[in-house]
Amino acid sequence: MAQHNAFYAQSGGVTAVINASACGVIETCRQNSDRIGKVYAGHNGIIGALTEDLIDVSQESDDTIAALRHTPGGAFGSCRYKLKDIESHRTQYERLIEVFKAHDIRYFFYNGGGDSADTCLKVSQLSEKMGYPLTAIHVPKTVDNDLPITDNSPGFGSVAKYIATSTLEASMDIASMCATSTKVFVLEVMGRHAGWIAGAGGLAGQGEGEPPHLVIFPEIPFDRRQVMERVEYAVKNYGYCVIVVSEGARYEDGTFLADSGNTDAFGHRQLGGVAPTLAGMVKQDLGYKYHWAVADYLQRAARHLGAKTDVEQAYAVGVKAVELALEGHNAQMPAIKRVSDNPYRWEIEAAPLAEVANREKFMPREYIREDGFGISDAGRAYLAPLIQGEDFPPFENGLPKMARLKLARVEKRLPAFSL
Amino acid sequence: MAQHNAFYAQSGGVTAVINASACGVIETCRQNSDRIGKVYAGHNGIIGALTEDLIDVSQESDDTIAALRHTPGGAFGSCRYKLKDIESHRTQYERLIEVFKAHDIRYFFYNGGGDSADTCLKVSQLSEKMGYPLTAIHVPKTVDNDLPITDNSPGFGSVAKYIATSTLEASMDIASMCATSTKVFVLEVMGRHAGWIAGAGGLAGQGEGEPPHLVIFPEIPFDRRQVMERVEYAVKNYGYCVIVVSEGARYEDGTFLADSGNTDAFGHRQLGGVAPTLAGMVKQDLGYKYHWAVADYLQRAARHLGAKTDVEQAYAVGVKAVELALEGHNAQMPAIKRVSDNPYRWEIEAAPLAEVANREKFMPREYIREDGFGISDAGRAYLAPLIQGEDFPPFENGLPKMARLKLARVEKRLPAFSL
Repeated sequence: MAQHNAFYAQSGGVTAVINASACGVIETCRQNSDRIGKVYAGHNGIIGALTEDLIDVSQESDDTIAALRHTPGGAFGSCRYKLKDIESHRTQYERLIEVFKAHDIRYFFYNGGGDSADTCLKVSQLSEKMGYPLTAIHVPKTVDNDLPITDNSPGFGSVAKYIATSTLEASMDIASMCATSTKVFVLEVMGRHAGWIAGAGGLAGQGEGEPPHLVIFPEIPFDRRQVMERVEYAVKNYGYCVIVVSEGARYEDGTFLADSGNTDAFGHRQLGGVAPTLAGMVKQDLGYKYHWAVADYLQRAARHLGAKTDVEQAYAVGVKAVELALEGHNAQMPAIKRVSDNPYRWEIEAAPLAEVANREKFMPREYIREDGFGISDAGRAYLAPLIQGEDFPPFENGLPKMARLKLARVEKRLPAFSL
Repeated sequence: MAQHNAFYAQSGGVTAVINASACGVIETCRQNSDRIGKVYAGHNGIIGALTEDLIDVSQESDDTIAALRHTPGGAFGSCRYKLKDIESHRTQYERLIEVFKAHDIRYFFYNGGGDSADTCLKVSQLSEKMGYPLTAIHVPKTVDNDLPITDNSPGFGSVAKYIATSTLEASMDIASMCATSTKVFVLEVMGRHAGWIAGAGGLAGQGEGEPPHLVIFPEIPFDRRQVMERVEYAVKNYGYCVIVVSEGARYEDGTFLADSGNTDAFGHRQLGGVAPTLAGMVKQDLGYKYHWAVADYLQRAARHLGAKTDVEQAYAVGVKAVELALEGHNAQMPAIKRVSDNPYRWEIEAAPLAEVANREKFMPREYIREDGFGISDAGRAYLAPLIQGEDFPPFENGLPKMARLKLARVEKRLPAFSL
């Protein structure tokens, strides 16, 4: 069969395992060199395609590509750049097709979340209209776990493992200090819209009095009085209180805790952080000594603690994306299907992009405990398998070894294009 | 020879490996059961001795004790409680001796930092005056690495490895996002007085342009204009800027950055956090989009990423403490002596407590780069060996497995004592 090139790009916030998906895509392309010629990666995601800033992946050795499996971040650069409405900004989409045409690219693998699924679908539709034979496959990724259809999103399991582990470890710390020192520890985690990551913190403990004593979800309106009662109860009964709070925690009226209208001495909005805000409330209302942590990028970059399941799934959706393309499927996304909870078994199936694009999956209410401050048994049954297994990266001189890419650029063939 | 009991207690902020020292002490006591009877642990440190709240460690299985080696936090409870001046508060010291006498305790192992070394010395001196035969040995511990005599302090190496790894991983993240999103990432680390932990962040990179681009030490007065110039330079030349900042960063006049006099809308002092303060300055002066993280307890509890060297040294000082006691040494501390940098070799030697107590070891100026914003070659040579090697704990259901102790209490023999 005829040989054509492939394009791969990373989109949106990166994860600890998005490069494992890249690894799956590239290795599978290399295994099918009779049909797929070169893989070109977009430098900084789709911007690389628009500006014809392409990385020639064929310049990277097999060892380097294999090392992507244990390298966090986005190896080819990602971007926060949403293509505009296709009706009024058709030029951008047409430019993509032009670039693909100029470089004989007939396979389009787009690794991202909900927005990029939408872009992938539109590119697929437009190429069909324009009569250019392009196979567009979306590769799922997001730490937020909010993609529909797929049982979970690659990237989430590793964050979940990191947050559950960190919650457990920090709880051991405060438990040993609480007699004379810190009584309350607050850990702020990602997930502005959905409480999946906060819920993962709940995996750290289970029995009566085991931390975390409170998980604060964006899905449950924040009630200061009720929260403080719980904190006081935990300190009085267990000696200390561990709280995992979502950055998206909000009041009944939708106002974020982290944006409570406070301003500093210069009149600037108080610098974010739900954790310090909540810790301040604890001090103010209850007088307890506190500590707080904000994991931020640390949580989604922590490949050193990647979940084995997550790494395997991230790799598998990369592999499946290429297989789907070679089988002639178009506008699809490899989705993870849960076959059973215990033992946990999963498989990959194809989902039509039209069903994926522009839909967010929130944490179902039944995964949250009735009182709203922890995960339910159903939530635990869903979350627990996703943090299973370890997949430590190789270390060198005490630090995780990272893939070091050449990132050789492909010669441009088209006039410049401004974004 | 006659058999007497031993007392072990943990003091001050706990570390990822203080329990490895406990493991070394207890296992070595068990191996010398002809001379050492039971090990009694102080519940919540020295408070346990004062209040006769003793844990009978003989009730714990060998497996449980072995598991201490990979369990963070302080297994028997620690405390922030400094014994007062011996001249005016002699009662407390005498009470310790009474409790020891009541339970036939003739070996006193105190696991802590500078303050507890001082307590240990005083207890030793007083017991001698009172004619009670007590052998007092201090077991070094502190994430701050500020103990004198010992080349490094057990607990520091694991924090250093965690911070270096987290800096490296988060740098991979921001590097891939910086084209269209976050330009500056700020990681706040512990170390209010000494920049050892901040310096460890410097191990993440070395070459021109490699992150972290700035390390901000408490030892170097903070100059906002100069720092912002550096941040701007990094963003313009490398696309992004990673900053590791010590919680103890301060201005020339000694004011901490985190306590810059700002108040919130309610008139309260702005809730701490050097990282959000510094990130706010970046936004204000340069307009760059930022992210910030505060690792807090996560860094010193992160046993999942313990440095092999650190775990081994923590265990070794525990073993040596018991050996010193059995050899009849008193008022000593096992100290780590560096034999060579590369290959890194170390041994344990005894140091007199009189030389250890109440002295802090700061980061030498020659370990900091001349410009003040990074570690020098000498600093790197000192720090690099301490993060070497991995010693992953066993995992169960996706989480690190922790020792679970019975913490059986010893029957009290004395009247109650109020602190």
